[in-house]
Amino acid sequence: MERSPLAPPTFPAMTLPAGVTLATAASGMKYQGRDDMLLMQFCEGTTLAGIFTKSATASAAVLSSREIVAGGYIRALLVNAGNANAFTGQVGDEAVSTLTSALAAKLHVPETQIATSSTGVIGEPLDTSCLISQFEALTTASTASWEEAANAIRTTDTFAKGASATCEIAGKTVTISGIAKGSGMIAPDMATMLAFIVTDAAITPAALQKACASAGDRSFNAITVDSDTSTSDSVYLAATGQNVAVTSDADLAIFCQTLQSVMQDLAIQIVRDGEGASKLITIDVTGAVSDASAHRIGLAIGNSPLVKTAIAGEDANWGRIVMAVGKAGEPADRDKLDIAIGGHHITERGQRRPDYDEAPVAAHMTSDEIHIAVDIGLGTGTARIWTCDLTHGYITINADYRS
Amino acid sequence: MERSPLAPPTFPAMTLPAGVTLATAASGMKYQGRDDMLLMQFCEGTTLAGIFTKSATASAAVLSSREIVAGGYIRALLVNAGNANAFTGQVGDEAVSTLTSALAAKLHVPETQIATSSTGVIGEPLDTSCLISQFEALTTASTASWEEAANAIRTTDTFAKGASATCEIAGKTVTISGIAKGSGMIAPDMATMLAFIVTDAAITPAALQKACASAGDRSFNAITVDSDTSTSDSVYLAATGQNVAVTSDADLAIFCQTLQSVMQDLAIQIVRDGEGASKLITIDVTGAVSDASAHRIGLAIGNSPLVKTAIAGEDANWGRIVMAVGKAGEPADRDKLDIAIGGHHITERGQRRPDYDEAPVAAHMTSDEIHIAVDIGLGTGTARIWTCDLTHGYITINADYRS
Repeated sequence: MERSPLAPPTFPAMTLPAGVTLATAASGMKYQGRDDMLLMQFCEGTTLAGIFTKSATASAAVLSSREIVAGGYIRALLVNAGNANAFTGQVGDEAVSTLTSALAAKLHVPETQIATSSTGVIGEPLDTSCLISQFEALTTASTASWEEAANAIRTTDTFAKGASATCEIAGKTVTISGIAKGSGMIAPDMATMLAFIVTDAAITPAALQKACASAGDRSFNAITVDSDTSTSDSVYLAATGQNVAVTSDADLAIFCQTLQSVMQDLAIQIVRDGEGASKLITIDVTGAVSDASAHRIGLAIGNSPLVKTAIAGEDANWGRIVMAVGKAGEPADRDKLDIAIGGHHITERGQRRPDYDEAPVAAHMTSDEIHIAVDIGLGTGTARIWTCDLTHGYITINADYRS
Repeated sequence: MERSPLAPPTFPAMTLPAGVTLATAASGMKYQGRDDMLLMQFCEGTTLAGIFTKSATASAAVLSSREIVAGGYIRALLVNAGNANAFTGQVGDEAVSTLTSALAAKLHVPETQIATSSTGVIGEPLDTSCLISQFEALTTASTASWEEAANAIRTTDTFAKGASATCEIAGKTVTISGIAKGSGMIAPDMATMLAFIVTDAAITPAALQKACASAGDRSFNAITVDSDTSTSDSVYLAATGQNVAVTSDADLAIFCQTLQSVMQDLAIQIVRDGEGASKLITIDVTGAVSDASAHRIGLAIGNSPLVKTAIAGEDANWGRIVMAVGKAGEPADRDKLDIAIGGHHITERGQRRPDYDEAPVAAHMTSDEIHIAVDIGLGTGTARIWTCDLTHGYITINADYRS
C-alpha cells in the first residue's frame, strides 16, 4: 500500500517516559517479514485509564481491557496485529485469559494488571500459542523505539503514527508520548483505531480517566473516516508515576491540555491515513445550542458521502453542507446559517450572499487541507471535527477484491 | 447517463384514476429537448395527505406543501425539475406564492388547494416567469400519460418510475397509481426523492394521512442510498373520491395494504436507480426489542460504507454486518446474533458456525439481488430495509467533476 499523500514527512522525535519499556516481536501469524506484536511493560504503581468502542459487539480484548481499566493499575499491555479476536464467542474470551495468565507467570505480575489489545481479521479464532511462543523474545529483547512499536501495531496503515509533548508542572518537565494505528483495512475486516499513550507523571486512576475521557472527546471521538465503528477501538493511557505528582486542578488542567494536543496529533494522523484520503477536512461548528449539538452537526457534515465526494471532486458545493446541517436532527434555522469554506463566507439570511464570489472558494478546494466553518446562530455550542474526503481509493480498498 | 443495470425492463401498465388529469410541458429552464414540468389537476373534493423531509433546512415548496396537506384538500399540484428552490431564503418563499397565485387565477381554484414541488439545483433563485409562461400550455394540453409524467419529473434518474395496483372494496375495484423520482444527482445539488400517488377512492384527509404515514414507514422511510437526507423529499397522496368511500377499519386495512405495495414498488425502483448501484440489497431484521429498534439496526447496516463496498466487491464479508449491528446503538447481544446471507446461516453463539461453508454464500454474492437477514434474538421487533451497494459509480457521479 502506498504511503498516504497526507502523511507527515517523517516519524516525530519522541521521548520514552521513565517507567515504561517497549519490545516488539514477529509472530508470523499473518504478516511475514515484520514485527506484529508489541509488549509494553510498566513499573509498579502505574495507573491506567482508557476509552473503548461503544459497539454492542465489542471484541474479547476490549471486554477484558475495560475490567483492567476499572481496576486502575497496569503492569503489562500486549498488542497483536493481524487478528482482532472479535466475534469469536467464548473461545475468544478464553484466548484472552490464556494470554494474560501466561504473561503473568512470565513477568511475575498480577493477571489483573495485564491488558491485551488485538486488531485485524474478525471472526477468526486467535492462535494464542503462536503469540505465547514469542513471550521469551519479547521479555528478553532490548527496548524497541517508539517508531518500531508504532510499526508493529500497523495493519494496513500506510505510515507509523506517533506524537509526543511536554508540559511544565511544579518546575518539572512532564512527558506524554503515544502511538496509534488506524484506519487501514484488512480483508475481511473493518478498520480499527488503537492508541497507546504513556506519561511519566503520577496521577490517580480516577483523575487519569477523567483526563483521558475529556481529551478523547476532543480528539479520537471527533474524527471520522466513514462513520463505521470498529469492534476493537481502544485508547489506553498509562501514568508511570516516575515524575512529579499531578494533583491540583490547575496542574491537571495543564496536563489535560497537553494530553489533548498529543491525542489530537495522533487522531489527525489517523484521518490523514484514512482509506483513500486525498484531503484532510477540518469542520468547525459554532453557535449551536450546545457543544453536544455542535458535535452531532459536525459529524453529520463529516460523515456525509455527498459532502465528502464533493470535496474529493474539488467542488465548492456548499449546498451539500446545508443539506448535512439540515439532516443532523439538531436545532438549526435556515435563515441564521453562516457557512464559510476556506474562510470565505457564503450564506446569509437563508440564501447565498448577493456578493458571493466562487473563485477564491474554488481555489481553496484545490488544496489538500480543507476548512469548513458553520455558524448555527442559535447559541454558544462549539465543536471541531476532522475527516477526509471519499474517493475512488476508498472503493478500491474496500470493494475491489474477492474473498 | 446510462440506464441503471437494476432498472425494470419497461415502464409498467398504469391506470389513471378518475378525477385526475396530467399535463407536462418544457420550461427550457435547465433541460433542453425534454419536458420538465408536470401539472396534476384534481376534481373538487379531492383529499390530500403527504409526508415530507425532516430536514431543518427544508425547501420553500416543502414548507408550503406542509400547509396545504394540513388543509386536507387539493385541486392542483405543480412540479418542476431542474431547480429545487431550496436555501433561497425569503425570495424562495415568495416564488412559491407567485406560482400558486398565478395558477389559482388561471384555474379558478383556491390558492390554499394548490401545492408545488421542486427538485434540482439548490441555492439558485427560481425563475418563476419561466414556469408561468408554460401555464397556458399546461392547462390546454391533452392529458399526458403516467410515463410522460414520470419522465417530466426526472433530474438525473436513469429511468422513469411508476407503479399501479388495485384492490376490491365493497365490490368496487379501487385504483392506486403513482410515480416517483430519485435518487439521481444534479450538480451542484443533492439527491431528492419525490412521489405523487393518486387513488380514485373517497377517503377523509385524516384517514388518508394515517394510511400515507403508515405505508411510508414501510416503504420510502425504509430505503437508503447514501444516508443523506434531501431538503426536498416529499410524498403526496391524493384521493379523488370518484369511486367507493373507504371508511370502515377493514376497508382501510385493505386500502393501506395496497397502498403499501405501490409505495414499496416505487421505493425499490428508487433504490434500483441509486447512484452507481450494481446490486439491490434487502435487509430483514428480526428479533429486535421493538420495530423501531429493528429499523435503526437495519439502517445502520444499510448505511454502512463498509457493508456496501463489501457487497459491491461481491465479498461474503459477514464481519462487517456484525460491526454494523454493533454500532447501531440498539440493544444487541453478541452471543444471540444470527446472521444469514442469501438464506445461509453464518453465526451462532457469538461466533462463526463450526460447519460454515462460504461457497454458497459467495455464490449468492454474485447475483444482483442480495438478501441479508439478521436475527437479534432479544424480542419480536422486525423491519425490512432496502439499499444498494457503494461503487466507483457513486464516486464518479458525485466527485468526478469540477463546478
